[in-house]
Amino acid sequence: MSSPEELGALAVRLGYALDPAQVKDMAEAVAAAEPAAAALRDLPVRPETADPFRGETWLRGPVSADCPSSGTSHSRPPVTSENGLDGLGVLDLDGAEGLRETAARVRGAGPATERVAAALAGLERVHAELNCTIRFLHERAAEQAAAADGRAVPRLLEGVPFAVKDVIDVEGVPTTAASRTRADAAPAAASATVVARLEAHGAIPISKDATTEFAVGGPHPPLTGPCRNPWDRERWAGGSSTGTAAAVAAGAVPFGLGTDVGGSVRLPAAWCGLTGLKPTAGAIPRTGVVPLSWTTETVGPLARDARTVALLFALLRGPDGVDPRMPDVPLRPPTDLRGLRIALPGGYLTELCDGAVRAGVAHLAEVLVDAGAEIVPGEIPSAERALPIGYEIVFTEAAALHRIDAARWGEYDPVTVKRISQGIATPASDYLRALQFRAELQDELARVFAGADLVVVPTTPATAPRLPDGTVTVDGERYPLYAAQSRATMLGNLTGAPGLALPTGFAPDGCPVSALLIAPPHGEATALRAAQLFQDRTDHHTRTAPISA
Amino acid sequence: MSSPEELGALAVRLGYALDPAQVKDMAEAVAAAEPAAAALRDLPVRPETADPFRGETWLRGPVSADCPSSGTSHSRPPVTSENGLDGLGVLDLDGAEGLRETAARVRGAGPATERVAAALAGLERVHAELNCTIRFLHERAAEQAAAADGRAVPRLLEGVPFAVKDVIDVEGVPTTAASRTRADAAPAAASATVVARLEAHGAIPISKDATTEFAVGGPHPPLTGPCRNPWDRERWAGGSSTGTAAAVAAGAVPFGLGTDVGGSVRLPAAWCGLTGLKPTAGAIPRTGVVPLSWTTETVGPLARDARTVALLFALLRGPDGVDPRMPDVPLRPPTDLRGLRIALPGGYLTELCDGAVRAGVAHLAEVLVDAGAEIVPGEIPSAERALPIGYEIVFTEAAALHRIDAARWGEYDPVTVKRISQGIATPASDYLRALQFRAELQDELARVFAGADLVVVPTTPATAPRLPDGTVTVDGERYPLYAAQSRATMLGNLTGAPGLALPTGFAPDGCPVSALLIAPPHGEATALRAAQLFQDRTDHHTRTAPISA
Repeated sequence: MSSPEELGALAVRLGYALDPAQVKDMAEAVAAAEPAAAALRDLPVRPETADPFRGETWLRGPVSADCPSSGTSHSRPPVTSENGLDGLGVLDLDGAEGLRETAARVRGAGPATERVAAALAGLERVHAELNCTIRFLHERAAEQAAAADGRAVPRLLEGVPFAVKDVIDVEGVPTTAASRTRADAAPAAASATVVARLEAHGAIPISKDATTEFAVGGPHPPLTGPCRNPWDRERWAGGSSTGTAAAVAAGAVPFGLGTDVGGSVRLPAAWCGLTGLKPTAGAIPRTGVVPLSWTTETVGPLARDARTVALLFALLRGPDGVDPRMPDVPLRPPTDLRGLRIALPGGYLTELCDGAVRAGVAHLAEVLVDAGAEIVPGEIPSAERALPIGYEIVFTEAAALHRIDAARWGEYDPVTVKRISQGIATPASDYLRALQFRAELQDELARVFAGADLVVVPTTPATAPRLPDGTVTVDGERYPLYAAQSRATMLGNLTGAPGLALPTGFAPDGCPVSALLIAPPHGEATALRAAQLFQDRTDHHTRTAPISA
Repeated sequence: MSSPEELGALAVRLGYALDPAQVKDMAEAVAAAEPAAAALRDLPVRPETADPFRGETWLRGPVSADCPSSGTSHSRPPVTSENGLDGLGVLDLDGAEGLRETAARVRGAGPATERVAAALAGLERVHAELNCTIRFLHERAAEQAAAADGRAVPRLLEGVPFAVKDVIDVEGVPTTAASRTRADAAPAAASATVVARLEAHGAIPISKDATTEFAVGGPHPPLTGPCRNPWDRERWAGGSSTGTAAAVAAGAVPFGLGTDVGGSVRLPAAWCGLTGLKPTAGAIPRTGVVPLSWTTETVGPLARDARTVALLFALLRGPDGVDPRMPDVPLRPPTDLRGLRIALPGGYLTELCDGAVRAGVAHLAEVLVDAGAEIVPGEIPSAERALPIGYEIVFTEAAALHRIDAARWGEYDPVTVKRISQGIATPASDYLRALQFRAELQDELARVFAGADLVVVPTTPATAPRLPDGTVTVDGERYPLYAAQSRATMLGNLTGAPGLALPTGFAPDGCPVSALLIAPPHGEATALRAAQLFQDRTDHHTRTAPISA
């Protein structure tokens, strides 16, 4: 092992400026990460997964000179004034409420100015309790609402207020990323693609919401303090999309945008009783989002039900000509729920799991089986490597991205520094081995999906973490946050496979529990359909949190 | 700087087993490479080129849901028995001799058994002088030739003998990569895609030819000794596709296959008076080739004229469904030579250049201008970083690839070990910065190509290197091989842009000089057309080497 002094000297040479305390933290983080990295070095490399680029091909479908047969155009300009959802029929999950009906339900009634003002007022009340919002967009939203009310023909989401995690740009508004180093950031020159697409359908961002610092720091960002959970204010909403989740779960807005690098949409969704989607890597453009990790990062919607998530996904999906990692691959048509094959892997993915969470997974499986699904075998033996190796990639890329601000790390959340400094000194050899493992794990998952349509696991082992220490409780025992939270979620970030978290019930502590539906690349429609069926037959997702707008 | 002891300890931890002499060599190589790496660290990262994946997008064309409008099918199965060249019309460069006529010319007359036997006999004579061949495929080729003579309808290249660099698999034959560690390798289970595709058109591999060890070692592979140059046996043929070039230049075979990671097709082409193509990265599948570096490596043909190279490129190009880095992008239609815009950048690309080489570039430019081309401005300021940063990527990836054989590095060519050990301890931070530079350099080249159709530079600063020391002579002064040879060629490997080397004349020392035509991604047809015109109007490429079959 390199000594702290050697690590510190290397960090300086590579352009980082760490003080002695930070060097010590880094050395601890590196030492803690070393066993998993060493174990991976010893795992032989297979020739067919040696090229690090191989990890991208699973997400891109077969190579062919022919047009994708669906004929669906997935190239959408960032801004469109179309009122339609042409070509998105595959996400019209059933006749009972198609996407247009969902949009009408979400849109509600009454003038946009009133709906937006009411949302802002509600969000302010929620914020006073939960500390969920960094910036209220009063003027901007009011202007947009007034313009909306002047339109003759309402667009799909005309006047619908939504929350935006404060790592996602909104034009004319600064993006702080919950960092003191960006407290005085200049206003964003343009909206992120995801924001622009929703605005093009009439939706109105009303807030820049709480996040962990740079989406990687701890529950207590120095700029803002912690964001609390609508189900229990002594708990954390969960991160890193903390404020988005709190605002939606508290009913201030019907949906919001988050990002997910290791679980950061699905974990707060799980802990706040929401439905949250980490899409296939690359399916939703990340243009205009403060980057954390190129290989693992996604943008995803959070809402209170699967239909709303499906609608948002339909509006957000597709290349924008800017984000280089966007595969132009059609959505897989959903599998019929009658005969749906669901795998419930065990091992690492379930061994650390609170009984109430476990019961929720079983309940979900039961309802799906009742509707015609069958349980099939499927295990993921390499799943236990996913978390440490995923972090190896995340922190290496995060350190590289944050090198430009090395001089300001003293102002960062110390948790941010400790986490990303783990990636400063990663040898390229280890980084490449981690990317090779990505492809190996994709192969393992692909073998499961050869016999299953969905993989179902606990989203996370426990209910929401306590504040201030962030620990989670599993069958009465406490565990540190980072050791436990992302055991299942990192699988999706590392492989790029999409995952939909949905509420399955409540634990004795009164907090929501959640299950995760993992689909193959571009298989979101099957996960959304299964979630929708579950939500048609149950009502967990409709419960109102104690702290509500 | 890390001390040799620290580097050695890190190497051990990462799974490499170096003896003290090797550690010393590694430390020297790392120290020599550090200034360029440090300079790159100081160069600010631009957000739009931060994602290392961005380096792939330039090669893939625009993202669109629409079919490429050319309607040309570029998905070709590895083996086809088609006699046709359907859809390859863009490479039919003119009416005077289209690709079918070229094929007929290359095929020649007479039974395949006679042509193949004659080629083998000639190659044996050449090998006796030049040491160009590792293995003669007498039996295999004779069988194929007999089968060829039994066919009623001859295929495009029926019975044509060709050379294969011994890092490219031929089914049933061991691939040694000129390494003692592979002297007893098992026979290859399948032919490389490139070999299978040529065999499908009737061509017959007659030899596994000399290469530097693993395509990265020095001019004196311990397994074989050096491969000499047909123009002067006291000189090196040039690497790493040494034997392929010698066999073709000596007239034993009409063409051969090589690989190019930093110049290894174009340099031996330059020094042996051949026309050699490094295609766009990913355009020709690398399936079945001993890998050296995923990011930079290509397979390419060498022949004695541009029309033959064009024919081979047409038969080799296109996805095979296995190599993950294959973009399914159509060939760019060639630009008309009348009005062809050629840029002749200076600076680093020409400042170290022998007068005879320089004169050859000017001569080529003159002939093209005579035919209607115009010279336009175009400079590549970052070109001087391409060589050291290209090597940073190459050696880092090579070290990762060779880690599995770490226990056998003692049997490697010491030059191999010194070169690739430079990449053992590369920090991921530096590797990522190098990949970001790749995209920055692509942008710079793209700006030149916004105003130019081709970039013309010296392929390499001098005529063929002397043996045994490998030095080159520029205007009377000697330079070490690796400092000089790849100054221009690495540009193409790092960016993925295609480059065609062609002979432009002879130096006073009697050896060939060469120029390099660099085209934008998938612009090979323009380079081939320009080379063809030059070869229609000159005869340098027709001269016979002193040592010939």
